[in-house]
Amino acid sequence: MEETLRAAGAGAGGTRNISGNSHVHLMLEQELADLHGREAALIFTSGYVANDAALSTLARELPGIVVFSDAYNHASMIAGIRNSRAEKYIFRHNDPADLARCLDRVPAGRPKLVCFESVYSMDGDIAPIGELCDVADRFGAMTYLDEVHAVGLYGPRGGGIAERDGVMHRPTVIQGTLGKALGTIGGYIAGSAALVDFLRSHAPGFIFTTSLPPALAAGALAAIRHLKASSAERDLHQRRAATLKRRLAEAGLPVMPSPSHIVPVLIGDPVLCKAVCDELLQRHRIYVQPINYPTVPRGTERLRLTPTPLHSDADIEALVVGLSDVWTQLTLRRAS
Amino acid sequence: MEETLRAAGAGAGGTRNISGNSHVHLMLEQELADLHGREAALIFTSGYVANDAALSTLARELPGIVVFSDAYNHASMIAGIRNSRAEKYIFRHNDPADLARCLDRVPAGRPKLVCFESVYSMDGDIAPIGELCDVADRFGAMTYLDEVHAVGLYGPRGGGIAERDGVMHRPTVIQGTLGKALGTIGGYIAGSAALVDFLRSHAPGFIFTTSLPPALAAGALAAIRHLKASSAERDLHQRRAATLKRRLAEAGLPVMPSPSHIVPVLIGDPVLCKAVCDELLQRHRIYVQPINYPTVPRGTERLRLTPTPLHSDADIEALVVGLSDVWTQLTLRRAS
Repeated sequence: MEETLRAAGAGAGGTRNISGNSHVHLMLEQELADLHGREAALIFTSGYVANDAALSTLARELPGIVVFSDAYNHASMIAGIRNSRAEKYIFRHNDPADLARCLDRVPAGRPKLVCFESVYSMDGDIAPIGELCDVADRFGAMTYLDEVHAVGLYGPRGGGIAERDGVMHRPTVIQGTLGKALGTIGGYIAGSAALVDFLRSHAPGFIFTTSLPPALAAGALAAIRHLKASSAERDLHQRRAATLKRRLAEAGLPVMPSPSHIVPVLIGDPVLCKAVCDELLQRHRIYVQPINYPTVPRGTERLRLTPTPLHSDADIEALVVGLSDVWTQLTLRRAS
Repeated sequence: MEETLRAAGAGAGGTRNISGNSHVHLMLEQELADLHGREAALIFTSGYVANDAALSTLARELPGIVVFSDAYNHASMIAGIRNSRAEKYIFRHNDPADLARCLDRVPAGRPKLVCFESVYSMDGDIAPIGELCDVADRFGAMTYLDEVHAVGLYGPRGGGIAERDGVMHRPTVIQGTLGKALGTIGGYIAGSAALVDFLRSHAPGFIFTTSLPPALAAGALAAIRHLKASSAERDLHQRRAATLKRRLAEAGLPVMPSPSHIVPVLIGDPVLCKAVCDELLQRHRIYVQPINYPTVPRGTERLRLTPTPLHSDADIEALVVGLSDVWTQLTLRRAS
């Protein structure tokens, strides 16, 4: 596989085709490669574009490849896989045994790519990265890990869940965003030099578009360097999320179990979900995101709460009191 | 068509689904709608994403639609059309008669979408927008015009070639970028309120991604407002391009004919094309973009020169002298 990539991407090293390649872009790509312990990284316009461009290009250009995609993968990964038109299998969410069953259905000689996320954005649950990589290795499959909701937020240097869990060296490709914890906009993939040069030479979504403005690249670079050296924000972030979950549960609000900083509160109805948010904004001046279909399946409509390190105990209390009031007002069900 | 769009996009007016909707985003969208004389506009992450998301969504979601695409359309339009998997016809570049022949092959009852650009980025030639719209109208087809290389640069208020040519009201959709004349990053489409709400509700590349940073939206807004009121930059830009073309021709350099600010110089060989740019940079400290396959067809490799209003006569002379020197050094052919 590395040989195929190396032959097809040869000579592309380190540049953009036409222009838009500044010193700060190269520094940012080096910093991202270092963050994830990879040879190289490549910046795209957004995390969505990184997934769409990288997956559609890899799965279209590598002859005979079969893609294995977690059932809960983000829309941008689904777009990339669909747009490649490669043969694909959907395996059960976070289920290594089902992934093995799917891989076993494809002849050993065909190249394979297994795609999954670390933190899933709507339920806040976390993938068993090592186990999924074990299964992929057993079948000689490449792995593509989306760390969009974990970069900067998990791991001793902010490298994500893979770093936290000691398995950062295992995925073939790690994908992330500059638009969440890192505070700007843009996305990237990190991998071998051959893979990065292959995408640089073959991904239309990288080649035929405007490069990230240098000021944004510099902002992301500063954020990564800060979060590599400082764990204070990560520690506080986790404590804020734990406090919020505990206080919601104590108030009898139906907080969904989650091992991450993403704190979903189940409503189960799109009209009520919107009504809760409207009331919360109008009566308590708190803005919370209503998450309805198509972002989550119908019947699982929810609020998605994501506290930051800078939310105070008073902020959390105000939210819990406000939500309790709206719950009473709209006669919603309390958790048992 | 409008009815289909209205029914499917109903209730979406003016918002982003989850967050990222600031006052400046709405102001920018209103300003863009006004610039192109449309009811509404919608901002995307880039011009590439605007084309990919809008075309793939329109051509996937409108039942039975057939797409007619100019042979020289940009990679981002091709991506959108391919990703929709709609039936498509490629018509000869800038050829209304061939468009008519293609349209005539499809039953009258099927919805149709004709896609083309105003200024083509690699040859610098300009579409006969009115004639193409005449043909489209005759067959009841919608039209989608990419003004990426013309917004800000042409028309009394910078509305593009369609404005300059008095046909701005004719295309169903006008697409543009914030990343060229307007100096930031991002892309957009402008059209009817129903069409914009339809895309807002159905385009994954709009829904599942990060909104443009407000500072960039504010920068684009200021640029549009300035260029609506000032034609000085546009006038100077055209004079600079005319001077450059004249001086290249006088020096016997093979400048390709172009009615726009894009000034291509033919090389016809990828290795020489790169060598010319390298020599120009090393010997004369001038950076020019070598354009090779896949951006242009093999055998038409070229330099692409795009003077700005701020390039001086001295800058142009230095470029022509430097290119002449490199031409002699590499024993390249002069224009006859």
